[in-house]
Amino acid sequence: MTEQLAVAVLGANGRMGAEAVKAVEAAADLKLVAALGRNDSLDSLVEAGARIVVDLTVPESTEANVRFAVEHGMHAVVGTTGWDQERLGRLEELLAAQPGTGVLIAPNFALGSVLASAFAAKASKYFESVEIIELHHPDKVDAPSGTAVRTAQLISAERAAAGVPAGPDATTSEMAGARGCDVDGVRVHSVRLRGLVAHQEVLLGGPGEQLTFRHDSFDRASFMPGVLLGVRTVGMKPGLTLGLDDYLDLGL
Amino acid sequence: MTEQLAVAVLGANGRMGAEAVKAVEAAADLKLVAALGRNDSLDSLVEAGARIVVDLTVPESTEANVRFAVEHGMHAVVGTTGWDQERLGRLEELLAAQPGTGVLIAPNFALGSVLASAFAAKASKYFESVEIIELHHPDKVDAPSGTAVRTAQLISAERAAAGVPAGPDATTSEMAGARGCDVDGVRVHSVRLRGLVAHQEVLLGGPGEQLTFRHDSFDRASFMPGVLLGVRTVGMKPGLTLGLDDYLDLGL
Amino acid sequence: MTEQLAVAVLGANGRMGAEAVKAVEAAADLKLVAALGRNDSLDSLVEAGARIVVDLTVPESTEANVRFAVEHGMHAVVGTTGWDQERLGRLEELLAAQPGTGVLIAPNFALGSVLASAFAAKASKYFESVEIIELHHPDKVDAPSGTAVRTAQLISAERAAAGVPAGPDATTSEMAGARGCDVDGVRVHSVRLRGLVAHQEVLLGGPGEQLTFRHDSFDRASFMPGVLLGVRTVGMKPGLTLGLDDYLDLGL
Amino acid sequence: MTEQLAVAVLGANGRMGAEAVKAVEAAADLKLVAALGRNDSLDSLVEAGARIVVDLTVPESTEANVRFAVEHGMHAVVGTTGWDQERLGRLEELLAAQPGTGVLIAPNFALGSVLASAFAAKASKYFESVEIIELHHPDKVDAPSGTAVRTAQLISAERAAAGVPAGPDATTSEMAGARGCDVDGVRVHSVRLRGLVAHQEVLLGGPGEQLTFRHDSFDRASFMPGVLLGVRTVGMKPGLTLGLDDYLDLGL
Repeated sequence: MTEQLAVAVLGANGRMGAEAVKAVEAAADLKLVAALGRNDSLDSLVEAGARIVVDLTVPESTEANVRFAVEHGMHAVVGTTGWDQERLGRLEELLAAQPGTGVLIAPNFALGSVLASAFAAKASKYFESVEIIELHHPDKVDAPSGTAVRTAQLISAERAAAGVPAGPDATTSEMAGARGCDVDGVRVHSVRLRGLVAHQEVLLGGPGEQLTFRHDSFDRASFMPGVLLGVRTVGMKPGLTLGLDDYLDLGL
Repeated sequence: MTEQLAVAVLGANGRMGAEAVKAVEAAADLKLVAALGRNDSLDSLVEAGARIVVDLTVPESTEANVRFAVEHGMHAVVGTTGWDQERLGRLEELLAAQPGTGVLIAPNFALGSVLASAFAAKASKYFESVEIIELHHPDKVDAPSGTAVRTAQLISAERAAAGVPAGPDATTSEMAGARGCDVDGVRVHSVRLRGLVAHQEVLLGGPGEQLTFRHDSFDRASFMPGVLLGVRTVGMKPGLTLGLDDYLDLGL
Repeated sequence: MTEQLAVAVLGANGRMGAEAVKAVEAAADLKLVAALGRNDSLDSLVEAGARIVVDLTVPESTEANVRFAVEHGMHAVVGTTGWDQERLGRLEELLAAQPGTGVLIAPNFALGSVLASAFAAKASKYFESVEIIELHHPDKVDAPSGTAVRTAQLISAERAAAGVPAGPDATTSEMAGARGCDVDGVRVHSVRLRGLVAHQEVLLGGPGEQLTFRHDSFDRASFMPGVLLGVRTVGMKPGLTLGLDDYLDLGL
Repeated sequence: MTEQLAVAVLGANGRMGAEAVKAVEAAADLKLVAALGRNDSLDSLVEAGARIVVDLTVPESTEANVRFAVEHGMHAVVGTTGWDQERLGRLEELLAAQPGTGVLIAPNFALGSVLASAFAAKASKYFESVEIIELHHPDKVDAPSGTAVRTAQLISAERAAAGVPAGPDATTSEMAGARGCDVDGVRVHSVRLRGLVAHQEVLLGGPGEQLTFRHDSFDRASFMPGVLLGVRTVGMKPGLTLGLDDYLDLGL
């Protein structure tokens, strides 16, 4: 039998962290060696012999957590937000001094969402038209969603590189807002509906045909396969990786 | 065998009119007795013995056409736009003097579209949230579509009558247009995509569930079952009828 | 202020029952006066002054529970299965002797699902083609779902009454099962997919158009608005009612 | 200005051929130099100076057409069916003697359809469950569609290579056909509905999430962007190419 990887979860009492604890415990090839909450000391990571640290904490503590891990030769998988250019720069310097250690920082661990955005961007240069509809529960405060903005940016860059012009639009009479918002030339529409969780459609249209990529997140459980993929792969990807895309085999 | 109904089509050279000519000819219970173009005399309707006149012409001539029909005791099924309150008032006066004659003026003959709007309005009072997405080809000049506006108005009226408050929406940070336009308190989103024809979704959401009504018009042929239903029924509905709803058996 | 209705929940420790307890407690116009588990005595319903009893127990005990309620002049809302013709017959006899008391027995309390089935059946007679796709989690043991079978039966009856023939189908070469199963002349397709809960689409097709009714149950919470509607209405509907349809205002 | 490519269309009177004639004429970088019907001589291709031959004829004549083109140093883009292993073998021999000449034979020129199948296969190994729903007009004689079978085979091969087991399915009680047909371990469901053209959904499901790829062909026009991509690219792809995939930039 292959040896189990020793994994620690930071933020284990949060909603995402609690899911991660369950997911690691349920995986035959992984062993949960530590599950730390807000006031637990990072020193216990060393005592527990953690090889991989999963950080699902808060912006205030994530940098210190990751630096501690890297300084002790542990790889890190990070789902916490708050990593601006300054923090990233400092982390890259630290990693340069620890050449065998890997850190993955990903804004989105839902595999289906990452795949949908990557494929939609790639396909978008073959179609005249592209628009995005994102649908979320009505307690969300921002519109459009961060994922929709990133997807639109990916699409816009791919189309620009291929020299594809903006999609056609003959609208001359519009009620304010009907045509959505404009993110780098891509129209994005935000639906807010009780009962929903997090959903996104990318619609591509050409003469006589439509291609649609739809992703539905029904549950936080949807992030766990991505977290586990990160845990299993981070040790083979030294240095800093941003986003799950490079961990996926998407070559066609 | 039942006697065939004698039907005349006005605007027979237009795109809708040409479809209507084909549809009447293909119907075993109907007989096409006249198919008139722009310069043909209305007198030929009398000579041909038309019982039902289908008007698919232009706003400039539809009133004269319908008045001629009614004055000669023919029923009329009208898909032409341009019937404002003044014209409708004059027509009702005329019909009052012709008690057995019926006129149907409908903005939309696609049965599926009429049914979807009626059902969605009826259902909307049982859900916290409601939004509309309409999707059309990119040569359309207005956003949102007339059908979406009418659907939103029906929904808004039904919810108001039942005392249902506006849907929840916690958005505090919005890129201009992301949340669509507001039609009587209902958010409407307009997508424009090459390859599409005319499509609409009404999304209703409550705790843990979503109910969606979607209608797709792929082709002008979709209007013909509604036109034929009008032709077969108008003789039994004296007076003026607006919209196909009253011709449908929707009682549940 | 209107007086609160005194409600008791039976099966309060089950998954549905626990949801019902929460829903009743959260409703301003209702007051939870008893929440009984498997071994609790029904006598406490009397002591607690329950006016409405919600039965979410098991087939073995539901009949005795409902009879006890009716005999003590309490109305009952029942989501438990196992009510065959014999049990229903006995219950109707009992209700005949208690003319002011109402009982609602419903196989499905998701309002959206009930509405979708009712509307789809009503609309189906205006379309040549109709098929059903139901999609569920892969732990479900029966295919198709009971809701899909009931929807197909409603549709089949509505089309038969209107004299609509079976949908066209030119298939001459079929891999076994490709065209789904046949429920009273309606094709039904069952998808089983990890991540799903309970979903159903009714697809209606005519020349150049499609009308789709889709219902998504993401969560057991979706049954609670229907349960509460039952609780609030059952006192005004003496006798036995089967299915939530008669409690809904669907007249168009 | 770049010189225009000289293009000939064979089968120019058929439905696909007529669309291709229009598409070539409308493209600024292409010049239609010949449009041949059933009884026209292939010699006119030489006289017209064709560089690329588009074959949209019938199985009986496609092999002779393509061999004539290759023997005269013209590249060929072929949408006609009927190319079995024997014909393909003979063509490869011929091409070996014409090292600069390219032939593309593709069963499907709808870019969106080709992209959807390729992406769905690639993504399928990250999900527990996968099923396919294909939807067509009711005059289609085979179920499932050839495209659905090919998509299922691609998916099955990709999952097998990655060691992904068959999707979970707890069904123990099934009405015959409810769970669709089995193509290499992937369940495929075939819907037949008046009004539809050609549509396909690949549904992937994992814990708490779903990823859906949907392609809609509304019109034969949807094949033309793929035909034009073939015409523009075939000269740079010597030898025999099967399927449009290798002409697309899908690397991620």
